[in-house]
Amino acid sequence: MRRILIKVAYDGTDFHGWQLQPGVRTVESELNAAIKALTGEEIAVTGASRTDAGVHSMGNVAVFDTESTIPADRFCPALNTYLPEDVKVTESFEVKPDFHPRKVNCRKTYEYRILCSRVPDPLRRRNTWQIPYALDVGKMQEAAKYLIGEHDFASFCCVRTQAESTVRTVFDIEVTGKDNTAASKEITIRVTGNGFLYNMVRIIAGTLVEVGAGKKEPEWVKEALEKADRTEGGPTAPPQGLVLKEIIYEEK
Amino acid sequence: MRRILIKVAYDGTDFHGWQLQPGVRTVESELNAAIKALTGEEIAVTGASRTDAGVHSMGNVAVFDTESTIPADRFCPALNTYLPEDVKVTESFEVKPDFHPRKVNCRKTYEYRILCSRVPDPLRRRNTWQIPYALDVGKMQEAAKYLIGEHDFASFCCVRTQAESTVRTVFDIEVTGKDNTAASKEITIRVTGNGFLYNMVRIIAGTLVEVGAGKKEPEWVKEALEKADRTEGGPTAPPQGLVLKEIIYEEK
Repeated sequence: MRRILIKVAYDGTDFHGWQLQPGVRTVESELNAAIKALTGEEIAVTGASRTDAGVHSMGNVAVFDTESTIPADRFCPALNTYLPEDVKVTESFEVKPDFHPRKVNCRKTYEYRILCSRVPDPLRRRNTWQIPYALDVGKMQEAAKYLIGEHDFASFCCVRTQAESTVRTVFDIEVTGKDNTAASKEITIRVTGNGFLYNMVRIIAGTLVEVGAGKKEPEWVKEALEKADRTEGGPTAPPQGLVLKEIIYEEK
Repeated sequence: MRRILIKVAYDGTDFHGWQLQPGVRTVESELNAAIKALTGEEIAVTGASRTDAGVHSMGNVAVFDTESTIPADRFCPALNTYLPEDVKVTESFEVKPDFHPRKVNCRKTYEYRILCSRVPDPLRRRNTWQIPYALDVGKMQEAAKYLIGEHDFASFCCVRTQAESTVRTVFDIEVTGKDNTAASKEITIRVTGNGFLYNMVRIIAGTLVEVGAGKKEPEWVKEALEKADRTEGGPTAPPQGLVLKEIIYEEK
């Protein structure tokens, strides 16, 4: 028996999220079906991040145990022949038999993409939050600084969470703006941390947009954080702007 | 009666191309339906480029005649409220009553996007031609130079065309490569000309890929052009890599 780690990229648009749910199409159900088709084994993968419906991934991680003799690095191309075009394995290798992708120290990086444009852009609708007015990137950068470090992120966590502690460490937040055309600007919020609460990155994005739009001052983010109460944070940004970029583990 | 020009952006994935066809969803049918919903008029728009199924646009152009009193620049936001999310009007203004978008001198720019990557990328599948091996950008640039200028592009034209002359002028072709990750490279072929034959940009892309892959030498493109015979050109690249970037008219 070997434990295989796979890195998984997907376009979340047409999935009901990562996690298995009866009767709907999820990333997990597609992976389990591809592994069964390849090895004949009834296997349920264990994922690192159970992303929501509409959220994308360039580097989610999952592990599974197999009796198959397929070389570890061949799972990547072999599983891809069975997977649909909106989910693909980008890498596969063997890990220690006790490696658990949610119980090992890691750095996770998410990106949230916003397109400020007077008119909607059909070509970017699946991977940006489109906002019909300009945002002040400088103020968003100023506000983002308050979130760096170890904090209780209860104000940035959807009430549905069942996590015991709401303390997390954000290693870095970077807000960058790029002009696409005279009338549009793409803003990317890149967040790296040791783990994230339910909806945390989307609430960070929604909160920074409140500041960028001038509805709140940057200092409001500091106050909202200190109050540790979800009603103090900003709104939850829509899922399609979010992409899980990568997960880096210290040990394998 | 006024003639209104609209610029139109769309994600071509879920359209059977631009042109009206019975029983299927096309960009033209959506535009006509939106104009009818807005003004009550039965109008058929006249488009500049009748793009194929799967081909995208950031700046196609269409005109229509209307008795409506809606200010010309308000057609853009008003039509967008009736249009589906994969097609939007980005600009609208009045033009001379005899302006015809296919009969006036213009510069059209298309981009063709290729992603060279060992593993497929689900997030780029709708707007790139994904090729599982590397291409030599330098050789593609060398080959592209032969296509610049006024030539008979019969070797780069699908036999289905009904155009009388196959002579066109290509003002410029730019082939640029950008490394996205260690294992992937995005190549963009940007072509500007005074008009293009049926499938011409896709055949140019398919031909340059033959050279980039080392199957042919750059000089082969010069020979293929001179023979003016479709069987001498390269294969037609798939539609999803192509986007009509803009059309610039000398007069309005």
